[in-house]
Amino acid sequence: MEYRISNKMKDMKPSAIREIFKSLSDPSIIAFAAGNPAPESFPVEALAKISAEIFEKSPVQALQYSITEGYPALRQAVTARVKEKFNICREGDMTLITSGGQQGLELACKVMCNEGDVVLCEEPSFIGALNAYRSCGAKLVGVPLEDDGIDLVKLEQAMIDNPNAKLLYMIPTFHNPAGITTSFEKRKGALALAKKYGVIIIEDNPYGELRFAGEDIPTIKSMDTEGIVIYSGSFSKILSAGMRLGFIIAPEAIAQKMVVAKQVEDVHSNIFFQMLCETYMREYDLDAHIEGIRAIYRRKCNLMLEGLDKHMPKCVHYTRPEGGLFIWCTLPDGISLDAVVKTALERKVAIVPGTAFVCDPATPSKSFRLNYSTPSDEQIVRGVEILSDVIREML
Amino acid sequence: MEYRISNKMKDMKPSAIREIFKSLSDPSIIAFAAGNPAPESFPVEALAKISAEIFEKSPVQALQYSITEGYPALRQAVTARVKEKFNICREGDMTLITSGGQQGLELACKVMCNEGDVVLCEEPSFIGALNAYRSCGAKLVGVPLEDDGIDLVKLEQAMIDNPNAKLLYMIPTFHNPAGITTSFEKRKGALALAKKYGVIIIEDNPYGELRFAGEDIPTIKSMDTEGIVIYSGSFSKILSAGMRLGFIIAPEAIAQKMVVAKQVEDVHSNIFFQMLCETYMREYDLDAHIEGIRAIYRRKCNLMLEGLDKHMPKCVHYTRPEGGLFIWCTLPDGISLDAVVKTALERKVAIVPGTAFVCDPATPSKSFRLNYSTPSDEQIVRGVEILSDVIREML
Repeated sequence: MEYRISNKMKDMKPSAIREIFKSLSDPSIIAFAAGNPAPESFPVEALAKISAEIFEKSPVQALQYSITEGYPALRQAVTARVKEKFNICREGDMTLITSGGQQGLELACKVMCNEGDVVLCEEPSFIGALNAYRSCGAKLVGVPLEDDGIDLVKLEQAMIDNPNAKLLYMIPTFHNPAGITTSFEKRKGALALAKKYGVIIIEDNPYGELRFAGEDIPTIKSMDTEGIVIYSGSFSKILSAGMRLGFIIAPEAIAQKMVVAKQVEDVHSNIFFQMLCETYMREYDLDAHIEGIRAIYRRKCNLMLEGLDKHMPKCVHYTRPEGGLFIWCTLPDGISLDAVVKTALERKVAIVPGTAFVCDPATPSKSFRLNYSTPSDEQIVRGVEILSDVIREML
Repeated sequence: MEYRISNKMKDMKPSAIREIFKSLSDPSIIAFAAGNPAPESFPVEALAKISAEIFEKSPVQALQYSITEGYPALRQAVTARVKEKFNICREGDMTLITSGGQQGLELACKVMCNEGDVVLCEEPSFIGALNAYRSCGAKLVGVPLEDDGIDLVKLEQAMIDNPNAKLLYMIPTFHNPAGITTSFEKRKGALALAKKYGVIIIEDNPYGELRFAGEDIPTIKSMDTEGIVIYSGSFSKILSAGMRLGFIIAPEAIAQKMVVAKQVEDVHSNIFFQMLCETYMREYDLDAHIEGIRAIYRRKCNLMLEGLDKHMPKCVHYTRPEGGLFIWCTLPDGISLDAVVKTALERKVAIVPGTAFVCDPATPSKSFRLNYSTPSDEQIVRGVEILSDVIREML
């Protein structure tokens, strides 16, 4: 039978990364393509202990329906933490627990955009967000990233050219996939432009606590006096990705509509893990735990950079991240990205081509993303050698 | 600041039931308004034991990112179970794990409907589904329920009147809120009409395993030779509502698009609880557990019916369910439903007015929904007395 799929979904493909992820079940593949937290970053013992306590003390609450906004104690803990860590404490904002950071990005677009409305996106950008906006029927307009963040001249031009631009999606800190961090000046500049042209900023900050070098830069949300920034955070990279918990901090009028939109998507997020997460934050030292994760990623990132410095042909450019999970590599002219990706996979190294991260899939790319959090140390060393060989052979 | 909320979300209100649910934190309220499983229906001890085992044996898998389609072993277990219980085994169908039954209902509409397309709904119907379809920009057209299911004459007329009807949403077994079960003849009739007019049926069956009287009637999906039925199931009423796990069984072309749509909503459902759920199904006796839940609801339903038979004025009509969680009461002419709901709440009994379950909120209603799974036995007895008094005083 021929099914009539909706216009906004009929041309949508599964995320290239999620598809690559499936192929990773082959243990012989070196996975530079994923974005998984390091397996050793989960506080298994503590979570097991808390889990047993919840089954002992409040099993019915943890297994019963709950409220859409999220477990009240977790909402309070999140609100207190983002105030302490990122100075986010605007009066009139509301904190909402989501099913992973992903859900907040999708809800924001569903609530703010009609079909055909424009979402301005850094280019490259996070594929999960781009697909979420596509699934809402929004039109994506890319604005190039420079080494210190979005190109403000082109951003203003895009705002002028697209009077129906409703949202500007940014990952200012440890960008996925580009690995860069937006400067303080560009954060202020983007906020000023958003205010001038009446565009709401979505500030996506899932990696914000994973700085392992350099100095913190204030979040855009911390400068938001007007209520034009929707801030998205996640527990995926600091506690567990599989439990699917994130949060949104947004002006109450927007957040209340996101609650209604969330209600029809999943009623509420898994309440057992919301309680588990809150207990961990209350009874354990999350800061110390995150310090441990930073140490892991500092070491893994350095290991990958050392390998790249040693083996990669000098004509290949790559970023030197101060945090997060990704290094962004750019090939010289004359080398086919497709051929590199394909040959690397044949030699058991999986990378994601830059074409997965652009607004218009027809846009050519010369870049690819490397992840250092998922592979083992041995895989990092070996994988970089293989990848360097693949590229050198094409020069 | 004035925010421009999207057209499809700007007039949407939170579900009346979810809002009433919040007021239920007052323990002095007798909650006939909710749809929560009985607290004693959760297999706490078994889940605690399995949970400890997962933390012991496969913590990384249970806390790491997973695939959108769902945990493969759980998908297999679900597929085997619906085949055994409901004879659902159409070749070319695919099973997908969702974040509660709610998510499947929303994904189905997102994948099949453009804005303005029509979803035909039984009237009354489940508010969570109606709101999900509204949030997709679909237009709802109600078709009245009779005592043995949807009015087939009016259903065909609605299909003729609405050539852009894409979906027909039905809860054939232990209807929420109406408490009735659609007859075999009407199931066949609805399927034949759907085939004739090219409409896809969503068969929502969250209560299907909770029969405590009468004989099973085949699911519509079990008669689906053409691939025009999307079947939705849930673990909320048989294991835990708070863990948020349900499933969809749909023709692969539709299910694959639902995977893409789910990917942008929450990437995947909580994997720890997917593993827990699968282990429970494998190592414990789910059938015996469900038999226990049926016994609880048989007793609670009978207790409520006895109270109604004894105290409720004879001019009030109510259903006598053979399963599920709800009794549907209809007032005689001349009594204000609003006044009954308001006065009952003042006397600490919460019920949901029928106006919450209609496609057009302006449609008047003379009915209200009673739930017997949530309140204690004492609350059922006392609450029915209070409610009967409230209505008697208005005669």
